[in-house]
Amino acid sequence: MAQMYSSVKPTPMLKDELDIVIPTIRNLDFLEMWRPFFEHYHLIIIQDGDPSKTINIPEGFDYELYNRNDINRILGPKASCISFKDSACRCFGYMVSKKKYIYTIDDDCFVAKDPSGKEINALEQHIKNLLSPSTPHFFNTLYDPYGDGADFVRGYPFSMREGATTAVSHGLWLNIPDYDAPTQLVKPLERNSRKFDLPIFLYVDAVMTIPKGTLFPMCGMNLAFDRELIGPAMYFGLMGDGQPIGRYDDMWAGWCVKVICDHMGWGVKTGLPYIWHSKASNPFVNLRKEYNGIFWQEEAIPFFQSVTLPKECTSVQQCYIELAKLVKERLGKVDPYFIKLADGMVTWIEAWEELNSPHGTEARAPNSGKI
Amino acid sequence: MAQMYSSVKPTPMLKDELDIVIPTIRNLDFLEMWRPFFEHYHLIIIQDGDPSKTINIPEGFDYELYNRNDINRILGPKASCISFKDSACRCFGYMVSKKKYIYTIDDDCFVAKDPSGKEINALEQHIKNLLSPSTPHFFNTLYDPYGDGADFVRGYPFSMREGATTAVSHGLWLNIPDYDAPTQLVKPLERNSRKFDLPIFLYVDAVMTIPKGTLFPMCGMNLAFDRELIGPAMYFGLMGDGQPIGRYDDMWAGWCVKVICDHMGWGVKTGLPYIWHSKASNPFVNLRKEYNGIFWQEEAIPFFQSVTLPKECTSVQQCYIELAKLVKERLGKVDPYFIKLADGMVTWIEAWEELNSPHGTEARAPNSGKI
Repeated sequence: MAQMYSSVKPTPMLKDELDIVIPTIRNLDFLEMWRPFFEHYHLIIIQDGDPSKTINIPEGFDYELYNRNDINRILGPKASCISFKDSACRCFGYMVSKKKYIYTIDDDCFVAKDPSGKEINALEQHIKNLLSPSTPHFFNTLYDPYGDGADFVRGYPFSMREGATTAVSHGLWLNIPDYDAPTQLVKPLERNSRKFDLPIFLYVDAVMTIPKGTLFPMCGMNLAFDRELIGPAMYFGLMGDGQPIGRYDDMWAGWCVKVICDHMGWGVKTGLPYIWHSKASNPFVNLRKEYNGIFWQEEAIPFFQSVTLPKECTSVQQCYIELAKLVKERLGKVDPYFIKLADGMVTWIEAWEELNSPHGTEARAPNSGKI
Repeated sequence: MAQMYSSVKPTPMLKDELDIVIPTIRNLDFLEMWRPFFEHYHLIIIQDGDPSKTINIPEGFDYELYNRNDINRILGPKASCISFKDSACRCFGYMVSKKKYIYTIDDDCFVAKDPSGKEINALEQHIKNLLSPSTPHFFNTLYDPYGDGADFVRGYPFSMREGATTAVSHGLWLNIPDYDAPTQLVKPLERNSRKFDLPIFLYVDAVMTIPKGTLFPMCGMNLAFDRELIGPAMYFGLMGDGQPIGRYDDMWAGWCVKVICDHMGWGVKTGLPYIWHSKASNPFVNLRKEYNGIFWQEEAIPFFQSVTLPKECTSVQQCYIELAKLVKERLGKVDPYFIKLADGMVTWIEAWEELNSPHGTEARAPNSGKI
């Protein structure tokens, strides 16, 4: 049974197998709070915006930092697929990493506490989620059967209890939930930026697999994934500077990733761990970024719900190129933006292959901390 | 937004619209603990086993009681579709009810407490679940968006936020989880019937919709549903006396119900409320009941996963008759039991129609409490 082979051993740290990717335009003071949890990991920092600005990184962290000049230098013309002035730029970090796993976190996310008051080691929980199987093919009503003290309930087919390989672990947020601009605007508590009371009632002590065939809104704030498995599909699209849309980078990646994970037979988990999301972004600014996305997702989601990838696609790269073709064909009619995005998807794969082939460009950042 | 139209009003009691169905072979002392929550509702008690035995029902409850003689008298030859010596007999109560909603609970289930120590009004939470919509077509990562303080997250398509009509509310269990016999046997804590410590960690404060296209193991211990919508599909099959299988009554109903809800566009919720399941049943006895089911479910689940009902089926009755036909065709090969079960499904619908048509038999139990 699940309990008998999981959770007996302590969770491995994966120090040499996981990079933490952080997009930022400001100082990384938030790292101080994460020091006990992150200090043994390598950080990949993607500096967004003006490359001449200096990002202060607290001492003692092992990091490499890339600004826009580095991205342009490393990718050349293919740098066009990496967003500018939008946290979507983080996906460049996925591409230059050489590790098996990625954890990405926003720089306004702090260590949360569980209802008992204990600080949550988010990374440890993500590693647990990624190292234990998923259950995308049948629903377990007691949530993750591989978790501590958990198991499969009566009626769960025995042949399915080995589960599927987990590709993605999607963590949640306490304090400020990840709402869209319209929801932010109509929720007065949020609009006024008043602090909630300690939101114990929002803490849901569960991890679950999102079933096969079901799409979900993937948030990039607190996200871990197996880069070797699904990395090439973790493209955060064209957002921000020069683009008609923002705040859909992670959503786009989520739709693509889920369709490809379903095709490949891999699982996507959501739930624990929580981080403490410190402040809501400006809903008026968000609305300007989002309004096209709000409109377009009404077409994009049915498209992704109906996509089936051909059996011939046996690698994530092949799936992704096929998906880019379908996006161009079927969403290009919605807006020319999708034609540009489909081209960006192809460029992304080309750049990924270039950097990740055995003879790929050596992408070492000029600005790196103690290594 | 969800919070703006739900959870502001108190949950209606639905006194005149809900029956509580309880299968039993013993005295119903457990009702004492439920008195504050159940006393205003009508109970339908299905006495299983020897009809000459007397079931003691605590005073003051409004009930009707049916034993095997009543079932035979009311249904005549069609009584063959109602199981004997198995709690599957409870579905007779769904058939004779005249109410819109049903709550069914096992007689070894007591009032649970939430982590704050407050007694959980399970029925009130089920009513909340049934009266608010479901989200079967897209996953909300913050769980039920219609719950208190909850909402849809960024990236949830606005056109889907009205949700779907909820047909089923599947509640969970504290203390003794609903495990199959092999799991009971290999979990020493359970096999020895030792008490767990207060299992706060098992309390997951969430309600969620099981996505369209995903099957789940539906447990009949703590279950509510909209009888007017899905009642005719809530058949608990042929189990117990004279049958080669037991403890798959609710599973069978769950597979059928889910396939039909998906076809009709209705939602199925799982999660809160919890009840306190007082004792595990005997794993050795359970294994004898279950072993055929454990074997057969490996064929039955892929069958239900692949079933698509024709568009012409626009009522639950039509869906169910079609499903019976497919069961006979495709599972009849697995074991002749499924041919008998398929016939039972048809008989069930005939009996349902007879009792629930305007000119149907008046099914009043001879043994009824204060009304």
